[in-house]
Amino acid sequence: MENFKYFTPTKIYFGKDSINNLTDILSLFGKNILITYGGGSIKKIGLYDKVKSLLKDKNIYELSGIEPNPKYNPSVLDGVKICKDKKIDVVLSVGGGSVLDCSKAICAGACYDGDPWDLITYKAPVKKALPLVDIITLAATGSEYDNGAVISRTETNDKMGFCSDLLFPYASIIDPVYTFTVSPYQTAAGAIDAINHVMEAYFAEKHSTLMDGMSEACIKSIIKYTPIALKNPNDYNARAEIMLSATLACNGILSLGNSSSGWPMHAIEHALSAYFDITHGVGLGIIAPRWMKYILSDKTINRFVSFGTHVFDIDSSLSKEEIAKETICKVYDIFASFNIPMTLTEVGIKESDLKEIAHHIAINEGLDKAWASLNENDILNILKDCL
Amino acid sequence: MENFKYFTPTKIYFGKDSINNLTDILSLFGKNILITYGGGSIKKIGLYDKVKSLLKDKNIYELSGIEPNPKYNPSVLDGVKICKDKKIDVVLSVGGGSVLDCSKAICAGACYDGDPWDLITYKAPVKKALPLVDIITLAATGSEYDNGAVISRTETNDKMGFCSDLLFPYASIIDPVYTFTVSPYQTAAGAIDAINHVMEAYFAEKHSTLMDGMSEACIKSIIKYTPIALKNPNDYNARAEIMLSATLACNGILSLGNSSSGWPMHAIEHALSAYFDITHGVGLGIIAPRWMKYILSDKTINRFVSFGTHVFDIDSSLSKEEIAKETICKVYDIFASFNIPMTLTEVGIKESDLKEIAHHIAINEGLDKAWASLNENDILNILKDCL
Repeated sequence: MENFKYFTPTKIYFGKDSINNLTDILSLFGKNILITYGGGSIKKIGLYDKVKSLLKDKNIYELSGIEPNPKYNPSVLDGVKICKDKKIDVVLSVGGGSVLDCSKAICAGACYDGDPWDLITYKAPVKKALPLVDIITLAATGSEYDNGAVISRTETNDKMGFCSDLLFPYASIIDPVYTFTVSPYQTAAGAIDAINHVMEAYFAEKHSTLMDGMSEACIKSIIKYTPIALKNPNDYNARAEIMLSATLACNGILSLGNSSSGWPMHAIEHALSAYFDITHGVGLGIIAPRWMKYILSDKTINRFVSFGTHVFDIDSSLSKEEIAKETICKVYDIFASFNIPMTLTEVGIKESDLKEIAHHIAINEGLDKAWASLNENDILNILKDCL
Repeated sequence: MENFKYFTPTKIYFGKDSINNLTDILSLFGKNILITYGGGSIKKIGLYDKVKSLLKDKNIYELSGIEPNPKYNPSVLDGVKICKDKKIDVVLSVGGGSVLDCSKAICAGACYDGDPWDLITYKAPVKKALPLVDIITLAATGSEYDNGAVISRTETNDKMGFCSDLLFPYASIIDPVYTFTVSPYQTAAGAIDAINHVMEAYFAEKHSTLMDGMSEACIKSIIKYTPIALKNPNDYNARAEIMLSATLACNGILSLGNSSSGWPMHAIEHALSAYFDITHGVGLGIIAPRWMKYILSDKTINRFVSFGTHVFDIDSSLSKEEIAKETICKVYDIFASFNIPMTLTEVGIKESDLKEIAHHIAINEGLDKAWASLNENDILNILKDCL
C-alpha cells in the first residue's frame, strides 16, 4: 500500500428534501450570493423557484447558461467578473457537474488578481477561494465531493483538470429526486462516468484488498441500478444508489493507498470532448473497452481477472486470458445496454480527425508514464479501434 | 435509503514515516502542547523520543498512564486540569483508541466551565473544544477518523459514548509500523472491534447495495489479514490493510443511508467492560455470535443470508436457515481462531454477576427500541449463553 494523505471536509446533505438545509447552510456566509446554473432544467423541475424562495432575504446574482464541458470563456470569466463587481460572499451552484466545476473555477478566480487560466493550468497556486455550496442534480462527476474541476478552452482545444483543497464545496445538497427528470441518455452517460472513475483507480499497479472490494461494490451498485433507473426514472431507491455511488466514486475514498494509473481513459476522452464537445460519459463508454483490450498484457492481466471475477462473477476456473477477454466483453455489453453510442463514428468523429487528437493527447497528458504506458501511436490505435 | 448528513473533516496522514508531517501540522497551533499517552509502549518502540525530538521548540506537558477503557477519574479530569492550568493550545494523543478517546474528552472539558461529565452525558452540549492531533498506534476503535469517544466512570459502572463534530481530530497520523509490536491478544481484539463496528451497521433494517458491498469488503480485508499479522507481526501490508479497514470501519462511510441498529453488541459489551474492565474487543468477540443466534428470526434472517453469502461465500443454494446458522458458526470460528477467550467465564465473569449487568443495560441502553428489540430478559439470556 502506498502512503497517502486524505482530506474531504465537504458537508454532505443527502436525501429527499435535503434542500431544506439550504437556509441554515447559507446563513454562515454574507448576503451576496451568486447562483450558477446551466440551460434551465432547474427551472423545469421547480428547483430554481424553490431556491429563490428560500433565499428571498439575500442579494441574488445569477450566471446562467453554463455549458456541458464548461467553458473558460465565457462562463468562468463572466462568473469571476460578477464575483468581483458585486462582492459576492458565496457561490451557490445548482445543476450537474459542469455547473459545479465551472463554479469551482469561478470561486478560485474571484480571489486571484491575474488571469484565472493561470490557476487552471497550475501556473499559479490557488491561495484563496470563495466558499462554494452546491445542489447537485446529476449523478456523474462526483464533483460534489471532491476538490477538482475540469474546464475547457475552445480556442486551444484544451480541457484541463485542476484541483486544490480550497475547492471542496463547503456543503453539497444531494437529493436523488432531482435526477428523476434526467434523460436516459444523460443518466447512462453519468453512470458510465462514475464507473469509469472507479476503473481509473482500479487498473493500477498498487492496490489493496480493501479498496478493491469497496470499488467493486461501487461499480456493482451502479450496474445493478442504472437499468432500473432507465426503466423507471422515478425509482427513488435506484436513483439514490446511483447518486451515492457517483458521489463516492471520485473523491479518493475508493483508492486510498493505490498507486496512480495516470487516468488514461479520462486523458483520452478529455481531448475528444475538447475537440468535439461530445458528452463526457459517452466518450468514456466508447474508449473504455478499447483501452482495456489494448493494454491487456502479462503485466496487466491480473487486474482484469480480479475485476472480472469480482464485478461480473466470471468463472474463476477459466484461464486468465479467457477471464480478461470476457471482462472486456462485459464492460462493452453493459455500456451498450445503456443505449448510448458505442463508436466515435456515431458521435461525428472521423478517422481523419484522429491523428491530431492523438498527437494532442501524447504531448499533453503524460500517458507514456501511465501504469500501462501509451505513446502517440498507441493512442492513435486505440482511437481507431473506437471508430 | 435513509436521508443522512455526513461530515469527516479530519486530515489523514497514512503510511510509513507519516510522522514526518507532525511538525508542519502542529505549526498551525500555539506552542503549549499536551501529549497524552498510556502505559509506556510508545517509549518501548521509540515513538515517544521521536515525538519529543520533533517538538523540541514547543512547551510540552504530559499526561501518561491513560487506562484501557479510559477513566473519567483520574485521566479525563487530570487532563482537563493541565489544559486549563497551562493554557494548552493543542492536545497530541499518542497511543491507541483509549488514549485518543480520553483526549477527546479532555479537549471538550478544557473548554467547559462545569463538570466535564455533563458533556459526556449530553447534559450540556460541546460548544468548543481544543484542537486535537493524534498518532494512532492500534488498529481497532477507528477513533482517529470519527467524532466520538467512550469514557468509563468506575464508581457508577458507567461506560458512556458521546460525540460532537468538534471532536474530530484535526489530523491523524496512521503508521502501520507502530502496530508491529502490538501483542497477538490486542491485535485480535482490535480486529474484532473493527469487524464489530461494521456489523453493528450492517445488521439493520434499511441498508443499500453499495454500503453492504463496501462493508463486506472491509470485513473481508480484516478477516484475510489478521491471521497474517498474527503469524508475521511485521508484515507491513497486512498491518496496513487492517489499519485502514479499522480507520474506515467506524466513521460512517460504510453505513451512509442505513437505519440505525441501536448498536446492541456494543451496548452489551460496554456494560461488561464498565463492570469488569475486560478488553473491549474480546468482550465483543464473546457477545457477537451469541447475539446473532438470539436475534435470528424471520424478520432478521435476510441480513444473515446477505452477510454469510457475501463475506464467507456460503453456498447460496442452501436454505436461509442453513445459511444463517453457518454464518453464525463462521463468525464464532473466526474469532476463536484469533486465539482469544470466547466465554465470559474465561474473562472472570460469573453467572451470578449477570443479572445486575442485564438490568443496567436494559435501563440505560434503550435496546428495547433496537432493530432486533431486546428486553432485560433477552439480554440476560444472551449473557448466559456467553458463559
